[in-house]
Amino acid sequence: MGRISKVFQIVGYKNSGKTTLMKILIKELSSLHYRVGTIKHHGHGTKPPEIMEFNKDHVEHFKNGAFVSMVEGNQVGQLLFQSDQITLETIIEFYSVFSLDIILVEGYKKEAYPKIVLIRSEDDLHLLKSITNILCVITHVDCRKKINGPYPCFLIKDKEKYIEWFFRTLEEKA
Amino acid sequence: MGRISKVFQIVGYKNSGKTTLMKILIKELSSLHYRVGTIKHHGHGTKPPEIMEFNKDHVEHFKNGAFVSMVEGNQVGQLLFQSDQITLETIIEFYSVFSLDIILVEGYKKEAYPKIVLIRSEDDLHLLKSITNILCVITHVDCRKKINGPYPCFLIKDKEKYIEWFFRTLEEKA
Repeated sequence: MGRISKVFQIVGYKNSGKTTLMKILIKELSSLHYRVGTIKHHGHGTKPPEIMEFNKDHVEHFKNGAFVSMVEGNQVGQLLFQSDQITLETIIEFYSVFSLDIILVEGYKKEAYPKIVLIRSEDDLHLLKSITNILCVITHVDCRKKINGPYPCFLIKDKEKYIEWFFRTLEEKA
Repeated sequence: MGRISKVFQIVGYKNSGKTTLMKILIKELSSLHYRVGTIKHHGHGTKPPEIMEFNKDHVEHFKNGAFVSMVEGNQVGQLLFQSDQITLETIIEFYSVFSLDIILVEGYKKEAYPKIVLIRSEDDLHLLKSITNILCVITHVDCRKKINGPYPCFLIKDKEKYIEWFFRTLEEKA
């Protein structure tokens, strides 16, 4: 099996910009030839992606009772699995086969990996007390004076600053 | 990691009934509570499933450069990965995380796992000389007299017979 990768979580409430931040980091990292893996969690109240409309053989296998099914061709593998017995830790473990440099995880607030936390408004600040291992906070409004943890806080408009911080942190953890 | 599973390949030329046989076996196995994994290979000349029409976050991650991307929710995980550097052996190894009883592989003729070979007509018989580890042959036409390998041959209409043989073989390999 390959190596265990560095894992970062992107957490925050709905509409806090997690998806956008994920996309920004994936683009920056892959343009610098990092091998990136991503994992996204659909929480309760969010409509998960519909697979059953997607009428392909591996979907048929899955509908007929397979626990995990895959189709591979044209340099892309597509896989479905019954995730109810699978933890995030296990997913990260099985990602080791891909010898990734970094894994970005969107969601899974209760997990203990290092986190970038997105804050939409002061109402969200209580989130900082309920989660562990905060690496940095990125806020939509300037509530930085109300945040006094041992981690940097960035405004969401200061993209260059938090990107620079992110790569510095990544290298420090190398 | 979980256990390594028993692996069977279903091989044969185009339109020999591989997809149907896969579906039959998946249904039979999962109805008996076997934990089944499947892997399907799209060979050259077969249009692989289109993923880019499937506009979801993990597809976005993949399009933006992720080597592997996943979305998980509603008890289903959906994963995409760049498969060009990944062998069948590696896929089977990483399936071990799911603690499967059996893995059914459609295609990958050149691999060495035990095989069920589908034969459409006498023209296909040369296939039996070019592949290894044949467990049984299932034919659309009765050319059994021309097959003299050390393995059973079934007619495709005798579904009960080859299903019974399959489960017996599975148990013998336990």
